[in-house]
Amino acid sequence: MNISIINIGDELLIGQVVNTNASNMSKMLCEAGMEVRDVNIISDNVAEIGSTLRRCLKNNDAVLITGGLGPTKDDMTKKVLCDFFHSELVESVEALENVKRIFEARGYELTPINRQQALVPKCCTVINNVKGTAPCMWFETSDPEFNINDGTPRKVVVAMPGVPFEMENIMVTEVVPRLQEHFQTGHIIHKNILVQGIGESFLSDMIEKWELSLPKSIKLAYLPQAGMVKLRLTARGDNRDLLESQIINAVKELYPIAGKYIVGEDMETLPEAVAQMLRVNSKTLASAESCTGGAIASKITSMAGASKYFRGGVIAYSNDVKECTLGVKHSTLEQFGAVSGETVSEMALGVRERLNADYGIATSGVAGPGGGSPEKPVGTVWMAVAGPNGVTVQLKKYGDDRLRTIERACNEVFAMLIHKIKEDNAKAIENQL
Amino acid sequence: MNISIINIGDELLIGQVVNTNASNMSKMLCEAGMEVRDVNIISDNVAEIGSTLRRCLKNNDAVLITGGLGPTKDDMTKKVLCDFFHSELVESVEALENVKRIFEARGYELTPINRQQALVPKCCTVINNVKGTAPCMWFETSDPEFNINDGTPRKVVVAMPGVPFEMENIMVTEVVPRLQEHFQTGHIIHKNILVQGIGESFLSDMIEKWELSLPKSIKLAYLPQAGMVKLRLTARGDNRDLLESQIINAVKELYPIAGKYIVGEDMETLPEAVAQMLRVNSKTLASAESCTGGAIASKITSMAGASKYFRGGVIAYSNDVKECTLGVKHSTLEQFGAVSGETVSEMALGVRERLNADYGIATSGVAGPGGGSPEKPVGTVWMAVAGPNGVTVQLKKYGDDRLRTIERACNEVFAMLIHKIKEDNAKAIENQL
Repeated sequence: MNISIINIGDELLIGQVVNTNASNMSKMLCEAGMEVRDVNIISDNVAEIGSTLRRCLKNNDAVLITGGLGPTKDDMTKKVLCDFFHSELVESVEALENVKRIFEARGYELTPINRQQALVPKCCTVINNVKGTAPCMWFETSDPEFNINDGTPRKVVVAMPGVPFEMENIMVTEVVPRLQEHFQTGHIIHKNILVQGIGESFLSDMIEKWELSLPKSIKLAYLPQAGMVKLRLTARGDNRDLLESQIINAVKELYPIAGKYIVGEDMETLPEAVAQMLRVNSKTLASAESCTGGAIASKITSMAGASKYFRGGVIAYSNDVKECTLGVKHSTLEQFGAVSGETVSEMALGVRERLNADYGIATSGVAGPGGGSPEKPVGTVWMAVAGPNGVTVQLKKYGDDRLRTIERACNEVFAMLIHKIKEDNAKAIENQL
Repeated sequence: MNISIINIGDELLIGQVVNTNASNMSKMLCEAGMEVRDVNIISDNVAEIGSTLRRCLKNNDAVLITGGLGPTKDDMTKKVLCDFFHSELVESVEALENVKRIFEARGYELTPINRQQALVPKCCTVINNVKGTAPCMWFETSDPEFNINDGTPRKVVVAMPGVPFEMENIMVTEVVPRLQEHFQTGHIIHKNILVQGIGESFLSDMIEKWELSLPKSIKLAYLPQAGMVKLRLTARGDNRDLLESQIINAVKELYPIAGKYIVGEDMETLPEAVAQMLRVNSKTLASAESCTGGAIASKITSMAGASKYFRGGVIAYSNDVKECTLGVKHSTLEQFGAVSGETVSEMALGVRERLNADYGIATSGVAGPGGGSPEKPVGTVWMAVAGPNGVTVQLKKYGDDRLRTIERACNEVFAMLIHKIKEDNAKAIENQL
């Protein structure tokens, strides 16, 4: 069962908005056993929308469209859908009720321009958008133009609003379940393995034999990210139990080969691996950030439940904040500078003690583009992790891309923390023996 | 001059990676006066890559491809390009030198799999990728199959690596200038106006007459984001001076209509507006965050030069951090709770004083999904801004989406800060009179 996604919006084509809708939709569809064949970003243009929809519907079983449903003048989608399905715009009672409900809840007056949102092509099924005023529209067709084989279900077109949280809610609660029901979908299982501390090509060499021995139902992909590689195993087929056991086997066989670089399974990011590690071990964390400027804390706290293991943090951008809030010694800053192993070590120890956490992590570096010197060029980052068994310090030299340096430093210090907790656990077991 | 972008990668189609490449490329091309007509995300599949390239090249002057050039087994792009241009793979001397240089700099040994990266189709021009090992390839064609008109330049296909910072560097330094030279490009000017405190449809009603009076060369788009709307004016034409004066005029006429909601010009985000406001007025900022968990600080420090106006911040996730690090009174927390106007006010005042900043901003709320109560449901956020003329407090009730609540709270408190600085400036002028 193949799907095309069409995201409509000039804002996407001039790069002012990143198209997170496509990735979120793809993720949901994949997890539900459906395959996204292509994503098409096009302009708010009648001819363009029509021809893209025609092409995509010929090649796929369903086409999901986002965008172009707002009340403003640059939105064309509904007009195209009317022409495409030889229908006409009518006011939908349920869509109008939803618009009224939302305006009432917000205490706004319903304007004529907003009432227009309740207009839909007569031939569609309206799917309620509880989070917004633009209705979602479901169309079915058996028109032979679109290459429909005998005995297969009618092809489906769904038009949704482009506002991300509205689209997400409609997808999860309505569109994905309806697609699963309408088409008989097979199984797809994904397994992510986070690998840190080895480059993509070295990893590829290291696990080549293992990769070649994988069953045909399993596909491997390398997803390099800042400072780490995500390995993704994808199993497809009709027998879910078989696929699951094949995946379990494959992962089991990977550990003897590359286990020392594996930092997490069944997750997308290192912060998730950190969260799991802290939760499972009932440990707490505090952060002291200079060059990462809050990115460490933000990554941790963007996950629900973070208050269970994250005590808080200090962003010590200026030196006197490092002294007064974290207790870094004035003499340390004078002798070694803010960007040094000594300072970052005192930052980690200080935040651990002052915020009463089991682990303290710290960064201090030159993210750039300014502030570099011959001894400490842009990209120099010191990192530290302080725990019950002392403090570990590391120096990394990244390039001159500010955001990339911040990203990599976060991932590196997260990896240091994971390895530190593993070590501490091993020590604890040793002491018990 | 029209361009298609093709982003290749299964990781994009299963939603594990957000396609930031498309938006970054589109932005650069637009700013250089070129129009991106569509973006196509497709699979690492030989047939798919070939047919998409053929379609896009027929409809456009140039096609830019990213992805599928890595050394691993799931990358197909070079094979397709060879077939497409009836060429064969040869080892490029300059590409090999680049691979060697990068491996030497990193102290790694050159493996056969990495040497393969220097293979390119014989008919292409190699563009050096100084940040990575995969070469960039530039193809030109005058094959009549691709609808080339008499007297127009040969059509262009460029294949680039998919690693974002490699692609960005190649685009800025090589591909965009070469495209500008190869094609005679016209002018496109964009003007962003950030509007905060009014919904899209109300804004649309408010400025309808102004919009209808815009010259034909100017197009208006509404880009709603969490807690604000970005208005984008786009002017296209051959006379840059004329376009610029038309834009200036249009903006001048907007202020009497919607000026009180405008918080910034010529920028993409509220943090940029905050940075400009602080810089222009030589003021410093410190942040005290509970529910936003470092997102405020991270947004501020992701911009180069932040150390000039950002002193630092405290993430006070637990109550005792609010007390010991920010000086929130124990009795305040006991009587009113952490999520209250009283607490958030003391947080803002405390961080302003302790970190010695001109302005202190603070948030405390229930981001969810857990932690809500009937009086303080999930989505409740208190915000405060403390400055030389006292503290301002605000309560907002957002929905149950954790990340969206964090995002909106950040934008709201940034808007509060901007309005506060404006007020303080107005007061200072009053006092002088």
